[in-house]
Amino acid sequence: MAVLDFWYEFASTYSYPAAMRIERLARPAGVSVRWRPFVLGPIFAAQGWNDSPFNLYPAKGRYMWRDLERICALEEIALKLPPVRFPQSSLKAARLALAVGEAYIAAFSRAVYTANFAEQKDISDDGVLRAMLVRLNLDPEAVAAAVSKDTLKAQTAEAQALGIFGAPSFVANGELFWGNDRLREAISHAALSKAFG
Amino acid sequence: MAVLDFWYEFASTYSYPAAMRIERLARPAGVSVRWRPFVLGPIFAAQGWNDSPFNLYPAKGRYMWRDLERICALEEIALKLPPVRFPQSSLKAARLALAVGEAYIAAFSRAVYTANFAEQKDISDDGVLRAMLVRLNLDPEAVAAAVSKDTLKAQTAEAQALGIFGAPSFVANGELFWGNDRLREAISHAALSKAFG
Repeated sequence: MAVLDFWYEFASTYSYPAAMRIERLARPAGVSVRWRPFVLGPIFAAQGWNDSPFNLYPAKGRYMWRDLERICALEEIALKLPPVRFPQSSLKAARLALAVGEAYIAAFSRAVYTANFAEQKDISDDGVLRAMLVRLNLDPEAVAAAVSKDTLKAQTAEAQALGIFGAPSFVANGELFWGNDRLREAISHAALSKAFG
Repeated sequence: MAVLDFWYEFASTYSYPAAMRIERLARPAGVSVRWRPFVLGPIFAAQGWNDSPFNLYPAKGRYMWRDLERICALEEIALKLPPVRFPQSSLKAARLALAVGEAYIAAFSRAVYTANFAEQKDISDDGVLRAMLVRLNLDPEAVAAAVSKDTLKAQTAEAQALGIFGAPSFVANGELFWGNDRLREAISHAALSKAFG
């Protein structure tokens, strides 16, 4: 089966509509999605940023929030602004996403995004995260025991080595696509690479 | 007629495919394009950048060149990389674009972009610019006499006041769209705003 690597960060606004749509778009194209959460903090820090570029560059930030509203309206994705803070700390959620296992990572990730961008919840709050796991019929203690800080570190290092500098990013067959705007093109590329090699 | 303001910078890579396609896409939608050249230098300087972000952030720059190749291939737009330098100095070309008049600005602007991104020519070279004017049957001396530095300054100040932070940008009915990826959406917005108020 054709595979598309989906690199996302729970604090990233444009990763939200990508996460909510990717399975729905990939499935009919015969493309299997590998969910690859990572954190942008270390990558931004390497570029000299200590905050989101949307906070560092206010004109860009104002535009992004309006653009996100338009995208979510067009795609019929719930959106409630502002989030409890921006960017939210995504470390705990990303570590949990890597610990829930392949069968649950997509559903857990969509739950985290919904909490952040549609429910004004704090995604670094232990109670909020625990409730998400329970709703998926997962045992929070078992998941917590499977958490590995090193796995997220390695994943983020891999993203950086692939040339990833923002989220969402998509990789198929050695080709990198950046941004929610490239989701359909990335899926097509994955499907065609598999079909025509 | 519905009107779309097209804000572009001759050094901007993503403005190139937008400039080559905008009239072809806007016409059947009943949208008239106002060509609004400006320069990003002062806007970037206000954000603390003394160079293109694609040079300041190399991972982003590498991605952009590959992405531009894919876009131009898909849209059947000629592309020859690298340009003679990046970013090229666009000041002279932008001042001339504002001086050639409404009847010629689209054709002159496409000629400048083609020189920059498909012909590896120096768009700050007087001979190169003069040849473009002659090819449009314009009198280079008359155009040079019509050049006003203040017009470009005012145009750039207007862009900044509109919240523009990059190029290409499109404005219709008070709504700002940023990036070649938003060209079709901007045209639709202009057409629908006119139709439904």
